Amino acid sequence: MKTLIVHAHPEPQSLNSSLKDLAVKTLEGAGHEVRVSDLYAMGWKAVVDAADYGPAASSPLRVALDSGRAFDTGALTADVRAEQEKLLWADTVILQFPLWWYTMPAILKGWVDRVFTYHFAYGVGEHSDTHYGDRFGEGTLAGKRALVSVTIGGPEPHYSPRGINGPLDDLLFPIHHGILYYPGIDVLPPFAVHGADRVTDADFPDIAKAWEERLLTLESTEPIAFRRQNFGDYEIPSLRLKEGLEPAGRTGFGLHVRD
Amino acid sequence: MKTLIVHAHPEPQSLNSSLKDLAVKTLEGAGHEVRVSDLYAMGWKAVVDAADYGPAASSPLRVALDSGRAFDTGALTADVRAEQEKLLWADTVILQFPLWWYTMPAILKGWVDRVFTYHFAYGVGEHSDTHYGDRFGEGTLAGKRALVSVTIGGPEPHYSPRGINGPLDDLLFPIHHGILYYPGIDVLPPFAVHGADRVTDADFPDIAKAWEERLLTLESTEPIAFRRQNFGDYEIPSLRLKEGLEPAGRTGFGLHVRD
Repeated sequence: MKTLIVHAHPEPQSLNSSLKDLAVKTLEGAGHEVRVSDLYAMGWKAVVDAADYGPAASSPLRVALDSGRAFDTGALTADVRAEQEKLLWADTVILQFPLWWYTMPAILKGWVDRVFTYHFAYGVGEHSDTHYGDRFGEGTLAGKRALVSVTIGGPEPHYSPRGINGPLDDLLFPIHHGILYYPGIDVLPPFAVHGADRVTDADFPDIAKAWEERLLTLESTEPIAFRRQNFGDYEIPSLRLKEGLEPAGRTGFGLHVRD
Repeated sequence: MKTLIVHAHPEPQSLNSSLKDLAVKTLEGAGHEVRVSDLYAMGWKAVVDAADYGPAASSPLRVALDSGRAFDTGALTADVRAEQEKLLWADTVILQFPLWWYTMPAILKGWVDRVFTYHFAYGVGEHSDTHYGDRFGEGTLAGKRALVSVTIGGPEPHYSPRGINGPLDDLLFPIHHGILYYPGIDVLPPFAVHGADRVTDADFPDIAKAWEERLLTLESTEPIAFRRQNFGDYEIPSLRLKEGLEPAGRTGFGLHVRD
């Protein structure tokens, strides 16, 4: 495998950084190639602005169109181009981050906002009566796999099907389906460590063992069975799931996972 | 009303900025006080790091604990303290942003990550057998109201109950419930403009009229009926919704809204 780890924690001695370090060691030890984008260590610029698009920035700025023109003309900044190249190089992507306010930290969201430009991650492919662009199962990053590795302050029951925070799978759906599956990446079930603020040195070996097992079985793990957009499950152009396809008792995000 | 508008778009001539400007004009015209945090114009620092906590930053950094100690001792940076003061001053909060990758732009997430510190927005109140901290309906910001005003590139059916992106209410749940309701703010139904990249000058008057109507009825609009945490609906400490309380046919995030 060629694995890109995108890591988002400010503290090199944090649990997140330990999981990132262990992933590098485990994957390299098994003969895989690994590259790491350690966003804090890189001083990653988190904020989209006109400077991202160089001479392709229009005035007034139009984020989607300008990012596409900058992509097309090679005018994107070197930091963004480097990340796009890493994504094209990798066959496997790991996002390592703490769940802050129920989603990724700003620095990682800024990686998505800046790197996933128009014509690279969206606005790809033809539109017709049977095909609404290459997305949700097709796209620039099709054929690759991704895994979200997340640390979570609260205990597991709070994120269970009846838990007050909402189910973890639903909280991660906008990342899994909306960010990763959108440009074509297959998404593996997440790796989650709950009660992260209370993890002690004595707890770490069990967490490390579970993480190593996931890392060493990445190639044989079944992805989440998200529905592909252009293969008959959705009306086009409304992109509503066709009647009768919903699994019994499922609503909302769960509709978009096959039984 | 005393309204704080937190605005997150890099282009002063964008649709988002026009909606922000119209909100200021409409609310001030109706005799209300308005303050604006225009995050791009302020050069808002989006990324949490040790510098946020000054002398309260420990080594290794512990984001939650250190942010709480910095809050307690007045060691937070001036930009963060100013935003906390604005939140305490306001009775109404409007978040104005474009939906980028199914959630808020990084700069706004960074406003949440940095301003919603431990002991201010979370880690508040006592824990007992009947009370799991002041949150989800109680907390520092209880009694205030918030509204999310969001522009969305895609058309409305894609965000409908069977739409491929998932229902908009579910995409916004981590913001509505997880960020705003968590420290006690009541959340009004969102204001959403779909097809935002295709809005022309000719379309704007209808959008403006709908927005003005929402702005002028903020005080009489019913909030989303999220369940309060500590008033009998949840088991403590698992915080699972008690059996029998689920509205018919609802699962996931929808469980946490009363009928």
